[in-house]
Amino acid sequence: MTDFEKELEIKAEEVCKLIEPFLPEEEGKQKRVIESMRYSFLSGGKRLRPMFMKESFEFLGGKDITIIAPFMAAIEMIHTYSLIHDDLPAMDDDDYRRGRLTNHKMFDEATAILAGDGLLNYAFETVAKSMSEEKDPIVLQRKAKAFDILSKKAGIYGMIGGQMADIEGEKNKDADLETLLFIHENKTAALIEASLTIGAVMAGASDEDVTKMEKTASNVGIAFQIQDDILDIIGDAAVLGKSIGSDVKNEKVTYVTLKGIEESVKEVKRLSDEANALLREMSDEETFLNKLINYLITRDK
Amino acid sequence: MTDFEKELEIKAEEVCKLIEPFLPEEEGKQKRVIESMRYSFLSGGKRLRPMFMKESFEFLGGKDITIIAPFMAAIEMIHTYSLIHDDLPAMDDDDYRRGRLTNHKMFDEATAILAGDGLLNYAFETVAKSMSEEKDPIVLQRKAKAFDILSKKAGIYGMIGGQMADIEGEKNKDADLETLLFIHENKTAALIEASLTIGAVMAGASDEDVTKMEKTASNVGIAFQIQDDILDIIGDAAVLGKSIGSDVKNEKVTYVTLKGIEESVKEVKRLSDEANALLREMSDEETFLNKLINYLITRDK
Repeated sequence: MTDFEKELEIKAEEVCKLIEPFLPEEEGKQKRVIESMRYSFLSGGKRLRPMFMKESFEFLGGKDITIIAPFMAAIEMIHTYSLIHDDLPAMDDDDYRRGRLTNHKMFDEATAILAGDGLLNYAFETVAKSMSEEKDPIVLQRKAKAFDILSKKAGIYGMIGGQMADIEGEKNKDADLETLLFIHENKTAALIEASLTIGAVMAGASDEDVTKMEKTASNVGIAFQIQDDILDIIGDAAVLGKSIGSDVKNEKVTYVTLKGIEESVKEVKRLSDEANALLREMSDEETFLNKLINYLITRDK
Repeated sequence: MTDFEKELEIKAEEVCKLIEPFLPEEEGKQKRVIESMRYSFLSGGKRLRPMFMKESFEFLGGKDITIIAPFMAAIEMIHTYSLIHDDLPAMDDDDYRRGRLTNHKMFDEATAILAGDGLLNYAFETVAKSMSEEKDPIVLQRKAKAFDILSKKAGIYGMIGGQMADIEGEKNKDADLETLLFIHENKTAALIEASLTIGAVMAGASDEDVTKMEKTASNVGIAFQIQDDILDIIGDAAVLGKSIGSDVKNEKVTYVTLKGIEESVKEVKRLSDEANALLREMSDEETFLNKLINYLITRDK
């Protein structure tokens, strides 16, 4: 394990400690749906989105972690619900995730649908509680702005929109580059954009810096996805001794199948150089946020 | 058609005109999910929840309809998403609703799941937009309170919780009165409570009046459900010449199967008398809100 990976582990634990207290307790006549929500939420994700949010907040000078913590919990709830619904038989029909049974396999389909709905709703419930208890009018306005970003990036003009386009794209094997970038931008990048921009807004950053964070996040999200597609091919070739990846076998259109490996590697580099330049415009210091972004984009597994 | 029914129709049209402009337009690469959301939203519901909200707002002196309209749209979106997900094969598996194909029959299951998610998310997106654009700090605080009520009543401590208990109850044919009332209170009454209390909060009502509205709504919701159970038996006997209703045939436990017709009729009367008394404590005037509540509770079809 590298020093960075050790640091990453410690950071992830810190994030867990901040977000887990927001989960509802397993009690009452609706206990089963809460159990199901907690099962998926606590199944060991990397907590990248709330981590990004916290790092962006601190990168731009935010101090009081209690004002951002509800949003950190909320974005992880939204990410978790999207995985539960994506795994359903009518969607990707997956039995396992992160080595554990998927929600509908562990519980049942009806409970998994409700648990997803419950987490999406509880994300906003968490934000609402934090807003209705907020006494400082300036912070309340920031929270309203953060709530606006969160809801938009999670919805039909963000993650849900990307998921719909992805489902449509799978039926249509001739998806073009424009459609592919729409899917990456929305399905993958939108929640990362929400994380980094909410961190900035809650830190009281200028509109200009918020926009820079959004652009940084968009680059990171898209580069991350292209790197995934590259690894699908290179990783298979190296590790499994095969020359084609599962995406090619599934006839799935990816950036790599459309543009080739060389162009894809170049594009990842271009996107990450731009992201790093944007961060440097905001601060000279080399922070964990810089390292995290570079790690994600250049990872080889 | 009675005079009241004519008035009800006009009121419903007014509500439609207020809430429909909040729907997203069918465009973009995610067009299909928007089409699916609009299909269910525009399939001719009675718009009772936004109507209750508007009437409560005006009953308690609210004037500026633009501050409540986003919440009216939001609660109808939440009601609509709950119907889409309830109709899914893994839940009630219904092919028709209000004489039209259910969402997953008209589109497909994956789209229906996303359309439900999309509507729930868009409800909060609508609230978020209205909050982030709000300049008046007093109104912003009211909106934060209204958002808090909406999210809570729609979630695991409201509608979703009631739905989970209902699913569990159907497996367990020995459901007791306490469980049954939990289901009615949450699955049916919670969104009506949200409607009436949000109307009160946005009108700037006192905490005391908000609490009275919540209690009124709880009574209305439960009485409405018991009346439904009564009509299931009496209605069938009169119209179809049968002596038992579909609930009895399905071995579904209802208030009527537990307590008998006579006790049930008495309970509806007790609940509605109490609701009317609460309304009279707030205003002497006989308003459309009083008439609407009495109509719903005493309806014979």
